[in-house]
Amino acid sequence: MAKIKIKPVGDRVLVKHIEEKEQVRGGIIIPDSAKEKPQEAEVIALGSGKKDDSGKVVPFEVKVGDKVLISKYGGTEVKIDDEKYTLVREDDILGIFA
Amino acid sequence: MAKIKIKPVGDRVLVKHIEEKEQVRGGIIIPDSAKEKPQEAEVIALGSGKKDDSGKVVPFEVKVGDKVLISKYGGTEVKIDDEKYTLVREDDILGIFA
Amino acid sequence: MAKIKIKPVGDRVLVKHIEEKEQVRGGIIIPDSAKEKPQEAEVIALGSGKKDDSGKVVPFEVKVGDKVLISKYGGTEVKIDDEKYTLVREDDILGIFA
Amino acid sequence: MAKIKIKPVGDRVLVKHIEEKEQVRGGIIIPDSAKEKPQEAEVIALGSGKKDDSGKVVPFEVKVGDKVLISKYGGTEVKIDDEKYTLVREDDILGIFA
Amino acid sequence: MAKIKIKPVGDRVLVKHIEEKEQVRGGIIIPDSAKEKPQEAEVIALGSGKKDDSGKVVPFEVKVGDKVLISKYGGTEVKIDDEKYTLVREDDILGIFA
Amino acid sequence: MAKIKIKPVGDRVLVKHIEEKEQVRGGIIIPDSAKEKPQEAEVIALGSGKKDDSGKVVPFEVKVGDKVLISKYGGTEVKIDDEKYTLVREDDILGIFA
Amino acid sequence: MAKIKIKPVGDRVLVKHIEEKEQVRGGIIIPDSAKEKPQEAEVIALGSGKKDDSGKVVPFEVKVGDKVLISKYGGTEVKIDDEKYTLVREDDILGIFA
Repeated sequence: MAKIKIKPVGDRVLVKHIEEKEQVRGGIIIPDSAKEKPQEAEVIALGSGKKDDSGKVVPFEVKVGDKVLISKYGGTEVKIDDEKYTLVREDDILGIFA
Repeated sequence: MAKIKIKPVGDRVLVKHIEEKEQVRGGIIIPDSAKEKPQEAEVIALGSGKKDDSGKVVPFEVKVGDKVLISKYGGTEVKIDDEKYTLVREDDILGIFA
Repeated sequence: MAKIKIKPVGDRVLVKHIEEKEQVRGGIIIPDSAKEKPQEAEVIALGSGKKDDSGKVVPFEVKVGDKVLISKYGGTEVKIDDEKYTLVREDDILGIFA
Repeated sequence: MAKIKIKPVGDRVLVKHIEEKEQVRGGIIIPDSAKEKPQEAEVIALGSGKKDDSGKVVPFEVKVGDKVLISKYGGTEVKIDDEKYTLVREDDILGIFA
Repeated sequence: MAKIKIKPVGDRVLVKHIEEKEQVRGGIIIPDSAKEKPQEAEVIALGSGKKDDSGKVVPFEVKVGDKVLISKYGGTEVKIDDEKYTLVREDDILGIFA
Repeated sequence: MAKIKIKPVGDRVLVKHIEEKEQVRGGIIIPDSAKEKPQEAEVIALGSGKKDDSGKVVPFEVKVGDKVLISKYGGTEVKIDDEKYTLVREDDILGIFA
Repeated sequence: MAKIKIKPVGDRVLVKHIEEKEQVRGGIIIPDSAKEKPQEAEVIALGSGKKDDSGKVVPFEVKVGDKVLISKYGGTEVKIDDEKYTLVREDDILGIFA
C-alpha cells in the first residue's frame, strides 16, 4: 500500500472504497432500492479520536485494515492516485465485516 | 444460522427482517394506515454499545435472538445471502416481543 | 387481559387506545378543533426506563392500569388481536386521569 | 371546584382558560395584532415537576390558584365538563398575574 | 408607576416599550433597513431567574428601571392599561443604555 | 470617542463598522463573491461575558479597540449618532486584525 | 511569508488556499462530482482554541504550516494581498496531508 498521503482529523477515518465487483463478500449486497445505498470500504487511516466532555480521547472501535460499511452521505469524497476514498466520522460507520 | 458477516458499530444492532407471512405472532399486525409502518425483525448481532457522557458503556436492553419491532425509518438496509437485514440504533427499537 | 405480547424498550410505554364511546370519563372530551387531538389510553406495559446522564434509571411516573392522555403524534401505532395500541415515550404522555 | 379529573405528567401544568369577558383584569388585554396571542388561565393542577441533569426535581414557580398568561401554542387543549383547559409545560407559562 | 400586574416566570423580564418619539436617546436610532428592527424598552419586572445545570439561579444582568434594547422577535407582547409591554427572555435583551 | 451609550448584555460585543474606504487595511479586502461578506469593525464595548456550565464567566478574547472581522448575519445593527454599530455575540467574531 | 494580518478567534484557523495547479500533491485530487468539493489549503495561523465544558482549552490538532483539506462550506473567505484565505473552525478541517 502506497504511503498514506492524508491523515484524518479528530473523529474522522480515511476509508478506501471497495469497488462493486469486489463487493460481493459472502453475499453482502446492498439493495439498490435502499433509500440510502451504503458503501463498502476499507479503513486506511484513523484520526486522533473523538474527545468526551472532559477532553479524554475515546478509543476508535474500527482499526486499520477493517472492511466496513459506511452510510452514503456521511463523509467527503477524495481521489488519491485515481482511487476513491472518503473521509468519514466514525459515527457514520455502520458495521465491520466479520 | 450462517456465521454473521457484519458486526454493528457503536449503539447499532443488526436485525433480520421477519417476512409478512411469519409476522402474525400472536395477533400483532401493523395497520397499513399507521403513518410509520414499523417492521418486525430478529436481533442477530449487537454493536459495542453506546457510551454515556463519562465514556462508560451503556448495556444493551435487547439481546441476540429477541424478536423486536423497529421503526421503519431508523436504520440502513443491507441484504446478506438474499435476506433483508437492517443496521439500526437501539434507540429506534420500539419493543421486544414477549 | 391476554398476556402482553410486546415489552416496550427504554423510556417507552405500551398503551391501549380507549375507544371514543368509552372516552367520556367524567366529561373529558377533546375538542375536534384542537390542533393536536390527544388520545385517551390505558397503560399496559412499561419499558426499562429512561437513563439520566450518569446512566441511572429514572423511575416512571405512570404505572400499569393508569388511564392517560397521550399526544397524537408522539408514538407508533400497532394492532394486537385487533385492538389499537401505541408505543409512546413517557415524555409524550400529557396527563393521568384521576 | 369539581375534583380534578386529570393530573399533569412531569413538568406540565393543567390550566383552565379564563374567558374573554373575565379577562380584563386590571387592564391586561392582549393585542389582537400580537403575532402570538397569549391566553389568560388559572392553574388547576401541577405535574410531578421537571428533573435536572442529576435527576433532582426542580420546584414549580407557579402554584394552584395562580392566574397566569400562557403562550398560545405551547400546550394541548382538553375540555372537561364543557370548560376549556390546557396541559402546558411550565416553561411555556409567560407570567403570573399579581 | 401603577403596581405591576404581572410577574414574569423564570428567565423572563417584563419590559415596557418606549415609544418612537421618546426613543432618540442620545442619538440611538435603529435603521429601518435593519433586518430585525430592535425595540427600545424599560425593565419593569424580573422573573425568578434562569437555573444553571445544577439548579442554581443565575443572577440577572439587567435591573428594574434599566433602559434596554430588545430583539424584535424574542418575546410576547401584552397591553396593560393601554401601554405596550413585552415578556422577553433575558437572553433576547441586546444591550443596556448607559 | 463620545461616551458609549449602550452596554452589550451577556456574551455580546458592541462593534462600530469601519467604512469601505477605511477598510483596505494591509490588503484585507473581502471578495464580493464571498457568499457571506464579512464586515470589518472596531470593538467599542464588551458585555458581562458568557457563563460556562458551572456559571463561571468565560473571559473575552477580544478587547476594546481591537479591529475585528464579523460574520455578516451574526448580530443586530443599531445607529448611534449616525454611525453604524452592531451588537454581535463574540462567537460570531471571525478574527482580530494584527 | 508577509506578517499575518488577522488572528483567528476561538477554535478558528486561518488557512491559505492552495491553487489548483499546485494541488496535485501526490495524486490527491478532488472529484468534481463530489457533492461538496473540499479545498486544499495551508494553515497560516491558529485561534486561541476551543474550550471544553469546564472552560479548559482543547489543544489544536493542526499546526502552522500543515497542508490540510477543508470542507467547502465550513468557513468564511477573505482576500489578503490578493490571495484567498478562509477562516474555518478546526472541526471543518477534514485531514492533514502527510
